[in-house]
Amino acid sequence: MNDPILLTPGPLTTSARTKAAMLHDWGSWDAAFNALTASVCEDLLDIAHGSDTHACVPLQGSGTFAVEAALGTLVPRDGKVLVPDNGAYCRRMLRILEVIGRAGIPLELPEDRAADPDRIAGMLDEDPTITHVALVHCETGTGLLNPLEAIADRVASRGRHLIVDAMSSFGALPIDLRSTPVQALVSASGKCLEGVPGMGFVIAERESLRTSAGRCHSLALDLADQWRYLRESGQWRFTPPTHVVAALRAALDAYRREGGTTARLARYRANCRTLVNGMRSMGFEPFLDDTLQAPIIVTFHSPPDPAYAFAEFYRRMRERGFILYPGKLTRVDTFRIGCIGAIDPPQIEAMLEAVAATLRGMGVTRTGRRRTPAAS
Amino acid sequence: MNDPILLTPGPLTTSARTKAAMLHDWGSWDAAFNALTASVCEDLLDIAHGSDTHACVPLQGSGTFAVEAALGTLVPRDGKVLVPDNGAYCRRMLRILEVIGRAGIPLELPEDRAADPDRIAGMLDEDPTITHVALVHCETGTGLLNPLEAIADRVASRGRHLIVDAMSSFGALPIDLRSTPVQALVSASGKCLEGVPGMGFVIAERESLRTSAGRCHSLALDLADQWRYLRESGQWRFTPPTHVVAALRAALDAYRREGGTTARLARYRANCRTLVNGMRSMGFEPFLDDTLQAPIIVTFHSPPDPAYAFAEFYRRMRERGFILYPGKLTRVDTFRIGCIGAIDPPQIEAMLEAVAATLRGMGVTRTGRRRTPAAS
Repeated sequence: MNDPILLTPGPLTTSARTKAAMLHDWGSWDAAFNALTASVCEDLLDIAHGSDTHACVPLQGSGTFAVEAALGTLVPRDGKVLVPDNGAYCRRMLRILEVIGRAGIPLELPEDRAADPDRIAGMLDEDPTITHVALVHCETGTGLLNPLEAIADRVASRGRHLIVDAMSSFGALPIDLRSTPVQALVSASGKCLEGVPGMGFVIAERESLRTSAGRCHSLALDLADQWRYLRESGQWRFTPPTHVVAALRAALDAYRREGGTTARLARYRANCRTLVNGMRSMGFEPFLDDTLQAPIIVTFHSPPDPAYAFAEFYRRMRERGFILYPGKLTRVDTFRIGCIGAIDPPQIEAMLEAVAATLRGMGVTRTGRRRTPAAS
Repeated sequence: MNDPILLTPGPLTTSARTKAAMLHDWGSWDAAFNALTASVCEDLLDIAHGSDTHACVPLQGSGTFAVEAALGTLVPRDGKVLVPDNGAYCRRMLRILEVIGRAGIPLELPEDRAADPDRIAGMLDEDPTITHVALVHCETGTGLLNPLEAIADRVASRGRHLIVDAMSSFGALPIDLRSTPVQALVSASGKCLEGVPGMGFVIAERESLRTSAGRCHSLALDLADQWRYLRESGQWRFTPPTHVVAALRAALDAYRREGGTTARLARYRANCRTLVNGMRSMGFEPFLDDTLQAPIIVTFHSPPDPAYAFAEFYRRMRERGFILYPGKLTRVDTFRIGCIGAIDPPQIEAMLEAVAATLRGMGVTRTGRRRTPAAS
């Protein structure tokens, strides 16, 4: 099966074994499937070291469904949520809050700057009506890593709650709920755990879930109700994506075999290093400073060469077997290349060769940053 | 792969070919995947004969997610929805309306009676503030078929809108949107189309979708926004369940090869006839009158024999390779057996033999209806 390699933030390239786990049908009421769900939730909780304090609530749909579910279930109707905004997924949380009728306050930041724990602390001190901070851990719009631990510390010491969109970090970047106070961590099957897309999950404080019954704006997205039903029956409330759950089980088995978070992070770091070094050697410039870059997805400035156009670059790279990702910045022309999925440095190296050949084919010679008139 | 045969209302037994379609990874931004989405939506629209008037909007999650999305997107915040209630899925719609803050009025009916078009018409005439009727086409809680066409006629002639939960009927029971006025039909991948679970879809009037922008209580479940984005970009707004979509494409190919709705209905009818005749010959009584029974799932009275217990019956049937389904009625002790999925009468016959052997093994001899003290 010569599928193209997906160098995207998910869906991503999964292993043949993970996909093969979908070759069975499961009854959603059956004990075997209940055991599958329980074992998946247990492993997810274990990865976050949350077994003593938190519960893992799986949810049908994409990661955004789970983010909306966490905000709708955990933030009281009269709550107020501070959202450090340095990217597209931060703005998506603000948009969700607006739609579901919860007050959201942006802390506006440039897209190439990490959220500053002290500024967040200052805003919490200034406005005692803020009940929550909602943080994007790794902002997939750029690839930027926000300082979760320091922010969690400031938020907890002020008696507020922290909800973390850990969509593209969970499983690769270590998060320890024993030492990092977090009300809820949100992620999904099809990211660094290398499952297929189709379910999200929220690792939430059990105490918070208990006190959130009846608060959600939605039946489908009500995590407190989903958790209650799961505890009572071992089942999902509504038809689960059985094959996606089975694939996630296989992906978690692979995760354990590989060596867990440490080994996965090491592999992604090797992928990222290979990628950034290789692209730099061809003259490309990453959008972010190295100190802010998570080894998940890298944003590069588009070449300033008039022969370059992303659509054509994408098409030619795809023909060579690699699927890249467009940029998600409004003010700077960029594209993105992911480091995650069932891929290793040799695949990244092959991709770099394809980039070099594609640039030659397109006649692109200038690859550095596009200088704005003022800066040139 | 000796998987048990699922005789449930979904997830159900799918073909090996449908499952094998999940052995590939797809980029959610890639043109190949956009084409896959477009072709699936086109086929779904075509099955309902809605291409001239309606649009097919796919949605991540289970069928209930799509039902909530349809109600939240299409019913105005000050709308009022009449729900003929003869089963668990009718009550689920009422519960959704309650949670999302739309007025819902039940038309309470016994669980063994179809919704009466004239009573619905009467209620619409009496209360001009009712804007919508929300109907469950085939009530999976019992297997009962409600008279869609006659109800649609009464609702339309009174200038109201009809939203249909066609979860377990779509693809098997013919629905023709050219002659049946329906604002929105809701179904999912893992039912009579014989795909795997993980996505729902709503076939909604394009005009209604256009006028519904900004109305939904949820970002994730906003069908108007999902449709707008799909038209603009060819993409789902949030990560699609790529493998589930690919499996649905394969399932739709099989559906066409089989001969579409007519052939599928004929097969399910043959399954249902084999099932009901076989169970009757062993003394079991269906809960519903034959005239109300859809060939989707059949509810049987639990044997009144003290040696019978569903959990044990289920366990032994599972050991023999068949997964049955519990009852969903509050007042009568029942169990259910599905007729849908990639199965034929020979599998039903094998299941009937397993039932006979299981009853012998359990020492169950009385299989008829449990008589209430008053009736005995």
